[in-house]
Amino acid sequence: MSDMKLSQLGELALLEQIRKSFCKKSKNILVGIGDDAAVLKPLDKKLLLTTDMMVEGVHFDLGFITPYQLGFKLTSVNVSDIYAMGGKPFYLLLNIAVNKDTNTKFIASLLDGVKDAIILYDTILIGGDISATNTGIALSATLAGYTKKHIKRSGANTGDKIYVTGFLGDSACGLELLKKIKRPFPLEHGAKSMEQRAENKNSVPYAPCSIPLEGLSWNMVEPLLKRQLLPEARNPKKFAQYATSMIDVSDGLLIDLSRLCSESKVGARIYIENFPLSPALKKTAAYLGLSPIKLALSGGEDYEMLFTAPATKKVKAIHIGEITESERVIVDSSGRERPFSAKGYQHFRNQK
Amino acid sequence: MSDMKLSQLGELALLEQIRKSFCKKSKNILVGIGDDAAVLKPLDKKLLLTTDMMVEGVHFDLGFITPYQLGFKLTSVNVSDIYAMGGKPFYLLLNIAVNKDTNTKFIASLLDGVKDAIILYDTILIGGDISATNTGIALSATLAGYTKKHIKRSGANTGDKIYVTGFLGDSACGLELLKKIKRPFPLEHGAKSMEQRAENKNSVPYAPCSIPLEGLSWNMVEPLLKRQLLPEARNPKKFAQYATSMIDVSDGLLIDLSRLCSESKVGARIYIENFPLSPALKKTAAYLGLSPIKLALSGGEDYEMLFTAPATKKVKAIHIGEITESERVIVDSSGRERPFSAKGYQHFRNQK
Repeated sequence: MSDMKLSQLGELALLEQIRKSFCKKSKNILVGIGDDAAVLKPLDKKLLLTTDMMVEGVHFDLGFITPYQLGFKLTSVNVSDIYAMGGKPFYLLLNIAVNKDTNTKFIASLLDGVKDAIILYDTILIGGDISATNTGIALSATLAGYTKKHIKRSGANTGDKIYVTGFLGDSACGLELLKKIKRPFPLEHGAKSMEQRAENKNSVPYAPCSIPLEGLSWNMVEPLLKRQLLPEARNPKKFAQYATSMIDVSDGLLIDLSRLCSESKVGARIYIENFPLSPALKKTAAYLGLSPIKLALSGGEDYEMLFTAPATKKVKAIHIGEITESERVIVDSSGRERPFSAKGYQHFRNQK
Repeated sequence: MSDMKLSQLGELALLEQIRKSFCKKSKNILVGIGDDAAVLKPLDKKLLLTTDMMVEGVHFDLGFITPYQLGFKLTSVNVSDIYAMGGKPFYLLLNIAVNKDTNTKFIASLLDGVKDAIILYDTILIGGDISATNTGIALSATLAGYTKKHIKRSGANTGDKIYVTGFLGDSACGLELLKKIKRPFPLEHGAKSMEQRAENKNSVPYAPCSIPLEGLSWNMVEPLLKRQLLPEARNPKKFAQYATSMIDVSDGLLIDLSRLCSESKVGARIYIENFPLSPALKKTAAYLGLSPIKLALSGGEDYEMLFTAPATKKVKAIHIGEITESERVIVDSSGRERPFSAKGYQHFRNQK
């Protein structure tokens, strides 16, 4: 895409470029981008539909995130929702509202991020819309998926074990870092870390960034920034057959676990000791004067799967607790119990 | 919904209220609002998916439109896209991003508009998201529909007749009026006009509004304001079996007809004489010093269906022209021809 303002290029020309860039044939797509609606062949599976919106100044800050990362993240967030139902993502629809003075380079970069994500998740862009705002940027995506068996939030049973698929708190800690450093980092998906590059000279490189905080190295903070800026959704394929309930951790462990408990009409007992805290989180949180446990319990956007499975099943995931009849407690490392409630990020609520 | 700020009510409480208010059972919905994604039973029909975004300051001005009308219109716009493929709308997903200081009354009213629209179109709200912006309002909706036979933009054949389903230019003229009057009108769907009320005393009334423009009466401008603020999508059921191609008039007749021609690789000859201009448009455009023909050709948001059918078929719609091999001409009432191109509202382009 050549470099000009959207007002010069025009909406139709832009749509035509997107259409060409994302053109992908599939026998199941009867009509793709470019008509009033996409048309898809019937499949003998359950249809999953999810949608998410990302608004500048609320869900993202262009002082911290690149347009590439924005496109990648928006796609991942929606894929995560389809995965959380035990499904496979298929078709993506994208709404982009940008300022009319936005440079086409910005849009091209945003679409590159979407493209890398849809390749990663093996999905196809089939439609959407583009429009101009007078102020900030708003994006929304809708993702359709299919599954034979869906996994609800409401299926947890007393005695089930509670699992997560990876580190908690990394994303929130990454965001705290970005708020301090106040600039974006040009991380892209597929670009290898310094460590990986040392092992394989053919991988896509990116420049290691200098961290303007004395005592913190790039190697230490990179996984945190990556989880915040380029989250990858966790495919539940390996354990979906055992899961009795599932949700993705988008708003924070406590709030999402509370949702799962409420829907399943059960309680939960979770063990701080079992919590998956990354070395990067521990070091960086200490440096920032933050509690890694608090970040892990209340920080949002980790996009790890949180699920339950019968205690008799062998599940390859991190066991953090058990489903109880009704009490909701956190057990700390010395065995002390304290009740928990849905404390995580809630939109609209004034943060205290 | 009691009257408070969203920051007092909180996101979770709001979602719970929406969930209760829109709870509707259907044997085809396995999981509705409240999980990570909606889950729908497989149907042996083609799936249609469309999405649209409406951003404050671009697609609407809260100085002109009420939140009720906004909710109704957003739904109609998406239904119109499903209709334009020859489909029946089924499931709606809604993304709402509003300022955190927005009053809950505003949201309740917006949702009332959505509700009246989904009742009108016999669809069901099955999911979505709600979030807070620091500035304006952004809405997006995704609609899933089904059809046995879909109608593309690309099926028009040389010799086919071109039809529209109703008056053109009314919506654009309504918008010009609103820009002059600079205030919203509390029109709602189902509320009867003065004329209808005179005939049937049991119908839902609304106060006729005074029009602060001397020489214009409420009766004259009401259909124009209604088309702009509360557009109803046109169900193509009666002629879908004959239609060779179809599109809804959202960006203006010329731009949408040009799209249909480009996709079908054909031209078109349209007759000004045949153009459906409402008495309200003629009078009001004259009053405002505007050309009703220009409004009908280039004005957007009429949401009438524009379709083609073989000349041999008897179609109950307004015949405005014929599909040609390649030339695109408008024939005026004295028989003069002039070429046309896609002149309609284009986002980003600086309007001349």
